[in-house]
Amino acid sequence: MTSYALHDIPDVENVTISPDARHVRIIDQTQLPMRRVFLDISQREDMYEAIHSLRVRGAPAIGIFAAYSMAVLATGIDGLPYGEFRDRLGQMGTYLDSSRPTAVNLGWAIRRIMAVVDAFPMKKVPEIVSLVCQEAIAIQEEDIGMCRKISSYGLSLVKDGDGILTHCNAGPLATSRYGTALGPLFLGKEKGMTFHVYADETRPLLQGARLTSYELHQAGIDVTLICDNMASLVMKQGRIQACFVGCDRIAANGDVANKIGTSGVAILARHYGIPVYVLGPWSTVDLACRTGDDIEIELRDGDEIKKKFFAEPTAPEGVACYNPAFDVTDHSLISAIVTDRGICRPPFTESLMALS
Amino acid sequence: MTSYALHDIPDVENVTISPDARHVRIIDQTQLPMRRVFLDISQREDMYEAIHSLRVRGAPAIGIFAAYSMAVLATGIDGLPYGEFRDRLGQMGTYLDSSRPTAVNLGWAIRRIMAVVDAFPMKKVPEIVSLVCQEAIAIQEEDIGMCRKISSYGLSLVKDGDGILTHCNAGPLATSRYGTALGPLFLGKEKGMTFHVYADETRPLLQGARLTSYELHQAGIDVTLICDNMASLVMKQGRIQACFVGCDRIAANGDVANKIGTSGVAILARHYGIPVYVLGPWSTVDLACRTGDDIEIELRDGDEIKKKFFAEPTAPEGVACYNPAFDVTDHSLISAIVTDRGICRPPFTESLMALS
Repeated sequence: MTSYALHDIPDVENVTISPDARHVRIIDQTQLPMRRVFLDISQREDMYEAIHSLRVRGAPAIGIFAAYSMAVLATGIDGLPYGEFRDRLGQMGTYLDSSRPTAVNLGWAIRRIMAVVDAFPMKKVPEIVSLVCQEAIAIQEEDIGMCRKISSYGLSLVKDGDGILTHCNAGPLATSRYGTALGPLFLGKEKGMTFHVYADETRPLLQGARLTSYELHQAGIDVTLICDNMASLVMKQGRIQACFVGCDRIAANGDVANKIGTSGVAILARHYGIPVYVLGPWSTVDLACRTGDDIEIELRDGDEIKKKFFAEPTAPEGVACYNPAFDVTDHSLISAIVTDRGICRPPFTESLMALS
Repeated sequence: MTSYALHDIPDVENVTISPDARHVRIIDQTQLPMRRVFLDISQREDMYEAIHSLRVRGAPAIGIFAAYSMAVLATGIDGLPYGEFRDRLGQMGTYLDSSRPTAVNLGWAIRRIMAVVDAFPMKKVPEIVSLVCQEAIAIQEEDIGMCRKISSYGLSLVKDGDGILTHCNAGPLATSRYGTALGPLFLGKEKGMTFHVYADETRPLLQGARLTSYELHQAGIDVTLICDNMASLVMKQGRIQACFVGCDRIAANGDVANKIGTSGVAILARHYGIPVYVLGPWSTVDLACRTGDDIEIELRDGDEIKKKFFAEPTAPEGVACYNPAFDVTDHSLISAIVTDRGICRPPFTESLMALS
């Protein structure tokens, strides 16, 4: 894994593949906002680590990264005969898929790549690799288009001057361009609209502070950073007209897995009569998953709570920590699910099925 | 202000006055849990700073510290004639009272000291100073008794094996011995009971991580540290049977000002059908304050959110932060208010008045 800092590349895509398909390049999101460091990754262990350590994060970005990673890995074994090539690539895909359990896009992107491999057993392997690379690029291009559509649908749900609360990061860094939950804000800005955004800092990994406030501030969008536990007060004060959150997996009944704390935001919003909009690409909808109870919640190291980012530990060594990375927001708390296929309203079992 | 670290004083009171009444000694709570540093404070500017910077914190502890500070300041001017003594001490009391706006105990303790001064205009000033010192000691002794009563009342509300969620710190460090919100847990431990405590870390100043988890862990009480935004999930999972929180001011209608995030905890608990108990000394009840709308909420520096405690800033320099130190929990969300005078149930306007 080569790491270097670039300061003069404007608007670089968050995830890219090199022209020779020998490495994937990402912005190391763990180092933002203090350092803008790019990583060139070519080894599967580094790919796994980049996802697991959240160097690349956000369900759509993980999907794109996984697709490009598969393309790079396929390129590295394009001298093998087809059967061996397919088995090896499949094994590496299974390995990458195990790097994080909750986001559906990871497995979805890997399966989409493997479907290309499986579809052309009669072609020469280098030709298949070329198709794999095209498929990965297509996934990213589709994501750009999806974000644009989601942004447009989302923008129709709010009005100029609204206060918007967002949790975690579902902006350009989590996707390609625009983002999902932040997409309407960027699109609105382009159209000359003004929003007042409150960004939950999103403990423990501070994606709201490090990424969302960074992205919005850079774009000249009015953003105020708050601690997660301040959401109730700013809602009570009438500063919030809508909540925009992303999603990592949406069950068939509309239950939504997203960053830990999302369910709390939704309960507070319900209490104060504020609508909650979940924004994400259709690929996040997992109709095979009946309800949120079927979604595995990733548990992460407790040191993320009491050590990471801090100058010194915040709690004694022996104190136990519980560190779930996601929670499930019950469909009954969600006002609408906004995908690139349109806006789904309750009852979601029917509205999601109608778009499938 | 003299600062030194002591490692071998067991169970020292959190706030004490020197035998010659020349300084107040506190544990510097901003340095816990990594360092147990004691401060000897004799100047009014340092007293103000100790409260303002949360070196001493927790509504009851602030009251005790303010009373001892007034005793030290009175001792320093005991050579003045009565009228001048009273005016000077009154001015210093007003100055100390301005160090933090939300907790009622600060002004309450200062007024109680000034009432002693006002009650004996015919006595010699050194005699009055002696009475002031006795009054300050009485405030602390009463606090110890109050915590014991609150702990006993609070313990009656839970049962062995319960999971308890707590927010911020209302333990021994915030009071004298036992504490208020944590008091039932310490008392229960003495009686051989077991509780499973989930401590919100309580951003931005991390009193839950630094103080609550430290106090409970030291006492051998099972405690798990979570980020504030994880409360919804642990409640949903059935791990919580009751929420215990402290209070900084209680209005006549039962609205409660407490650490920012308390209202969010209460809304989540209501959603999941979990009782919320507010524990605090009767001195926290401010019947002159009709509702929570009359309580001033302290706004603090945004750098507490994005700089303090961190190895490097968590958000870009230019990003705005909103940092309210407290919020008001609506009385409708509170199951009971537990004071040393007994347990008040809704409607609080009547049950609080009945104990007044």
